[in-house]
Amino acid sequence: MKAVSCRNAQLDVIDLPTPAPAKGQLLLGVLRSGICGSDLHARHHCDEVAAAAAETGYDGFMRSDQQVVLGHEFCGEVLDHGPRTRKAPRAGTRVVSVPLVRRGDDIHPVGLSAAAPGAYAEQLVVEQSLTLPVPNGLSAEAAALTEPMAVAWHAVRRGEVRKRDVAIVIGCGPIGLAVVCMLKASGVRTVIASDFSPGRRALAVRCGADVVVDPAHGSPYDAAAGHGHFEGSADAFGVAVGTVEKLYKARLPWWHVWRAAEAVGVAKPKHPVIFECVGVPGVIDGIIAGAPLFSRVVVVGVCMGNDTIRPAMAINKETDLRFVLGYTPMEFRDTLHMIAEGKVDVTPLITGTVGLGGVANAFDALGDPARHAKILIDPQSPLQEVS
Amino acid sequence: MKAVSCRNAQLDVIDLPTPAPAKGQLLLGVLRSGICGSDLHARHHCDEVAAAAAETGYDGFMRSDQQVVLGHEFCGEVLDHGPRTRKAPRAGTRVVSVPLVRRGDDIHPVGLSAAAPGAYAEQLVVEQSLTLPVPNGLSAEAAALTEPMAVAWHAVRRGEVRKRDVAIVIGCGPIGLAVVCMLKASGVRTVIASDFSPGRRALAVRCGADVVVDPAHGSPYDAAAGHGHFEGSADAFGVAVGTVEKLYKARLPWWHVWRAAEAVGVAKPKHPVIFECVGVPGVIDGIIAGAPLFSRVVVVGVCMGNDTIRPAMAINKETDLRFVLGYTPMEFRDTLHMIAEGKVDVTPLITGTVGLGGVANAFDALGDPARHAKILIDPQSPLQEVS
Repeated sequence: MKAVSCRNAQLDVIDLPTPAPAKGQLLLGVLRSGICGSDLHARHHCDEVAAAAAETGYDGFMRSDQQVVLGHEFCGEVLDHGPRTRKAPRAGTRVVSVPLVRRGDDIHPVGLSAAAPGAYAEQLVVEQSLTLPVPNGLSAEAAALTEPMAVAWHAVRRGEVRKRDVAIVIGCGPIGLAVVCMLKASGVRTVIASDFSPGRRALAVRCGADVVVDPAHGSPYDAAAGHGHFEGSADAFGVAVGTVEKLYKARLPWWHVWRAAEAVGVAKPKHPVIFECVGVPGVIDGIIAGAPLFSRVVVVGVCMGNDTIRPAMAINKETDLRFVLGYTPMEFRDTLHMIAEGKVDVTPLITGTVGLGGVANAFDALGDPARHAKILIDPQSPLQEVS
Repeated sequence: MKAVSCRNAQLDVIDLPTPAPAKGQLLLGVLRSGICGSDLHARHHCDEVAAAAAETGYDGFMRSDQQVVLGHEFCGEVLDHGPRTRKAPRAGTRVVSVPLVRRGDDIHPVGLSAAAPGAYAEQLVVEQSLTLPVPNGLSAEAAALTEPMAVAWHAVRRGEVRKRDVAIVIGCGPIGLAVVCMLKASGVRTVIASDFSPGRRALAVRCGADVVVDPAHGSPYDAAAGHGHFEGSADAFGVAVGTVEKLYKARLPWWHVWRAAEAVGVAKPKHPVIFECVGVPGVIDGIIAGAPLFSRVVVVGVCMGNDTIRPAMAINKETDLRFVLGYTPMEFRDTLHMIAEGKVDVTPLITGTVGLGGVANAFDALGDPARHAKILIDPQSPLQEVS
């Protein structure tokens, strides 16, 4: 079969033997495969990622000198079942799969480990137990976005955003845009998206953002303040000062304010929930400095290496930094169903398609944020350029 | 009256006019005043703190070239009431007060602003509306600890620690010890305290720590793992891998595990809650690197200036960093009542007393972590050395 190999940052179409599913595994024919920001990053910086993963206990992440087939976002159709494996889903069924496979006693991430070739290929092997049939006749294009949308869904859930909260999305790359989609799908009334690129801001609007901000000419936090969500809340020293101040101006006795605060729940402040979807050094500290008191910051963007923050600033503001990764299997399943039931529209995210022979060009094209969000690979297509 | 002045890091006993309470304010005679780590820090680094506070919107924090009377932890007795002010609490009543006072339209932190002289003095002015009578005949010594214990109570509440969680306290200075006390007072079964100083570890045991660890010779996270709280939980990619692994070993079909996970709440992982009570550069990153997956880290220690973290490590572990500051007025009130009702014993924290003339010596003594936690000032005492 044809596949795209990545070794020493070089992307080449090569011929590989058709992979053989083991017991409990399925062979899929790839219908569509998505190019993820992680793939672009892994191409050049996988050794750093591997070192970080090793420090947390997983030693199988791809290394630059290994031959790896990338691709962990995909939709395929069942071609075959492993030996002594139940014949379900039946051959021909369109499926998606949580990208993890077993090799002996180990589990590896599909498309990000030399031990688990991914979906930049005509075929790949997946785990039967992690595979879900695509419902409602959903297209392979849309179904292939289940994985990145699940990342966004997990981030939104970890952000515990309520419908009346203001959500601010910093960075409108594919994950930032997916977060915008999922925030709107979950009913959040005010979603503010910030990106330097006019093309990305236009995509954010198509994904449902209520307000878009060019951070070169305005602050997303000011835009949020315009929505009147940052007043009247109190849960610590800094804001106790503000409360006392108001109280004096209103000539209310303090004890009355305590009781009123308990009664109306002022002690549970309304705070914005901010999604960091950039992942470069300095962004977290910039958010801490710019965001209002008591902001919850969900860190989705993966910043490699060292980063600098000012803890005293975060302490003065009682900032909450929640670092997130991936999703649970249930979130993956729920995401597929949200897409299939039309609760979330992923089509604005898909900006191009390419064949296996055009993957290197697609990686280059993704370097231009104005033009592209998600480029899909169709292994049957002869396209050398993104279209 | 006599007071201790701090200017250019110099501590001197000086004579000041007795302060005059304005409308809505009270004059207190200071019975006991606590020396806080913030005071030691403010003596030498207040300009940095003032700059950080100014960036979050408060411009009245003390500057090194101002004459400031420190002291924001205190118990006093009511001596007088401001003009046109209700005569409550009555003269002679023993009280504590949230250390904030009004000057015109502004609110200032008592003992940390040149505009609001603190309790390293024979008398000070407080707000009537922020003042609480000390109940149950509680001693002035214990009541003076209301303020630092409220800081700890706020941190514990923000940590959302459940009784069956493992709590780990990194650093057993006065605030770390107060956090240990408050964790035990709130019924947390397993509290692990870590400090390089044997004296501080002994104090942690007196405060109720179940396990103490010398980080030079062991890991508090290993000690926590010994309590068996880090198994069987799953809420993201990293741990999904672990779950899949177990599942295969147990030969369970994946869908059954999903259902089981929903039923038994595996999706809400048990994670340790870690309290960072050191506040020097590198500690936060060390906790991220050392702590298990899904740890919640409550950052209580105030690290000034820049600090370095590795976001990819925090992302791989889905770490939650909650920065906290101060307390709400209700937490202050509840803390006073917890102390007065005997729910928390603050006496292990009090390691010495000194007169106003001995404050500079007390600051020196607090530099030796083996000997001292909280030193109280008794303005009526002639003691020049801590005893």
